[in-house]
Amino acid sequence: MTTTLIDNIGLLVTHDADRPERTRAALVIENNVVVWVGEGSPAADERIDAEGGCVIPGFVDSHSHIVFAGDRADEFEARMAGRRYEAGGIRRTVAATRAASDDELLANASRLVAEARAQGTTTIEIKSGYGLSVADEERAVRLAATLTPEVTFLGAHVVPEGSDRDDYLALVTGEMLDACAPHSRWIDVFCETGAFTVDESRRILEAGIARGLGARVHAAQLGESDGVRLAVELGAASVDHCTYLSDADIDALASSGTVATLLPGVEFSTKHPYPDARRLIDAGVTVAIASDCNPGSSYTTSMPLVVALAVREMGMTPTEAIAAATLGGAAALRRADIGNLRVGARADLAILASPSYVHLAYRPGVPLVRRVVSAG
Amino acid sequence: MTTTLIDNIGLLVTHDADRPERTRAALVIENNVVVWVGEGSPAADERIDAEGGCVIPGFVDSHSHIVFAGDRADEFEARMAGRRYEAGGIRRTVAATRAASDDELLANASRLVAEARAQGTTTIEIKSGYGLSVADEERAVRLAATLTPEVTFLGAHVVPEGSDRDDYLALVTGEMLDACAPHSRWIDVFCETGAFTVDESRRILEAGIARGLGARVHAAQLGESDGVRLAVELGAASVDHCTYLSDADIDALASSGTVATLLPGVEFSTKHPYPDARRLIDAGVTVAIASDCNPGSSYTTSMPLVVALAVREMGMTPTEAIAAATLGGAAALRRADIGNLRVGARADLAILASPSYVHLAYRPGVPLVRRVVSAG
Repeated sequence: MTTTLIDNIGLLVTHDADRPERTRAALVIENNVVVWVGEGSPAADERIDAEGGCVIPGFVDSHSHIVFAGDRADEFEARMAGRRYEAGGIRRTVAATRAASDDELLANASRLVAEARAQGTTTIEIKSGYGLSVADEERAVRLAATLTPEVTFLGAHVVPEGSDRDDYLALVTGEMLDACAPHSRWIDVFCETGAFTVDESRRILEAGIARGLGARVHAAQLGESDGVRLAVELGAASVDHCTYLSDADIDALASSGTVATLLPGVEFSTKHPYPDARRLIDAGVTVAIASDCNPGSSYTTSMPLVVALAVREMGMTPTEAIAAATLGGAAALRRADIGNLRVGARADLAILASPSYVHLAYRPGVPLVRRVVSAG
Repeated sequence: MTTTLIDNIGLLVTHDADRPERTRAALVIENNVVVWVGEGSPAADERIDAEGGCVIPGFVDSHSHIVFAGDRADEFEARMAGRRYEAGGIRRTVAATRAASDDELLANASRLVAEARAQGTTTIEIKSGYGLSVADEERAVRLAATLTPEVTFLGAHVVPEGSDRDDYLALVTGEMLDACAPHSRWIDVFCETGAFTVDESRRILEAGIARGLGARVHAAQLGESDGVRLAVELGAASVDHCTYLSDADIDALASSGTVATLLPGVEFSTKHPYPDARRLIDAGVTVAIASDCNPGSSYTTSMPLVVALAVREMGMTPTEAIAAATLGGAAALRRADIGNLRVGARADLAILASPSYVHLAYRPGVPLVRRVVSAG
């Protein structure tokens, strides 16, 4: 088996419990797994010189919606000039997505995966939710599954235009779920005013869980919601957005195995107030940060930008932000093999052109990811 | 002479007075100058396919401080955790810069110019100001002049540690100016509490003007200041920062030939309030936006990020932001040959991987500059 040495690492982030960061370090990869971390330069078949740069685990972007067609730049422009974001904009992308061919959808999603990877993302979760018919949702999860193992069925993104609400709920928990579950690992629901109520969300998630899917929830994006406690109660891996949280929500999260995933690209692109990560971290909640890449409310694949926003806008230290973008994302996907560079982890990593990950926030907007290594 | 055709342009920004944007356009370059703009694909020796992307004038970054050594990531990290930015931090970079060799300084500046260029910047202004001795300031402008014609002597960045204030003023307006003027086009002064008073700034600028340099002023970064009206009175090309402006400042700017240059990377990296570009534009002031790239208060070379911040944080439309980053920067440097793609302009341009420049704000953090063409 070929071994690869990465040496001349100025700062190595392993997230090892005893020693999460090391200076002047090296690591050895064999069969796409980290097999050795230490100092010096042991013999190996291949060598990658990190040139004194920082090496971090590849970003785990645990929340994206990249199977879609169309573009909503005009809506963004109007919103920046003063209009509010309403969930209804999703329906516009639904129409464009349904009209697109499989090849077009896959090409667009592949382009975004490549764009994310060039910026250090080595694992990306992909949700459906712009199909909203049995055939179109099945197509979305099937195409997503060719790009990532972390596929989420989000038929419950919004009730499609022209559908009866009860009929659609029956579909999402019945025929559509049957069609999508074989391609999916997760089920998700948009539990928000204008989308699905807490009771409806419970029905949808329970149906998915009964089919063997793990639960994830969109909640508290636009206001406080019982959706957060629903997520905790059902043992969801993650509840995403968490912009508006009561003290009771925070207590529930802190004593649960549910990760709070914050998506500051949304607040950047909608001018809503940012969530307060500091409050969550200080309460002991596990926090992830992710892109929420979608054409409506956060059309970015840039995890470096998400890190910079977490530091500038959400009260996180650079160390907390980099952990949330790697280890936190992995926790939100219930994965121990990614998001860290301990011995035994997957060798998914990014080599930065800077001596520290602090520069991802200190040097905002600058493409600092020099090279990405991953199992593929 | 070789001609180059760029065609298949989805959206072309020329800033032509009659028709500032064209769809489905092409342009022809000869001898590094735009010689034709129109529809169709005329014959040319070489062809570049814009693949339906947007083509914009190269960014004119009219404010940077990239001749320096060292790194202040630790100061950034502390500031994000709650400490205030004080101008005194400059002195730390002065010590590192003085200790560096010519080769080290030039390598660092060249790296940053290349980084900026990859993100679409085709003209960059570079200031001295981390030398603060005759020899070190002369070295800074001499090295900068190997990278750009837009070199600014900023000996009056701050009074160096250990210097007598009056002695230093005599130096900056005398021997240091004599040494630096031959390598410089501009003189600048940091007119701010903790740096130089309005009266001192006047003396410094008048000395530079008498030596044939154009005037630029740093003012109103941390509070209202008579520095803005001083800039107007002296016919400065630009007054930079403009975060705190009185109505009288705005009136003075609107009826002047002085550009207000806004630097939102500073507010991003210092957590200060952003300037209100809307108020300036509505009053008829010519606005530029620039990076202020420096290791203390804005360590970014990313004009795409500056555009995104202008839209998100300063009330500019994407159209206004792209104009401020190109045509506005050119006005701040009193250049008519750059910042536009009219027939006769320099063929300095960026080809984007997106159908519109709106995406620079709509897709924040994503490297959208596919290719940069410039006279070199």
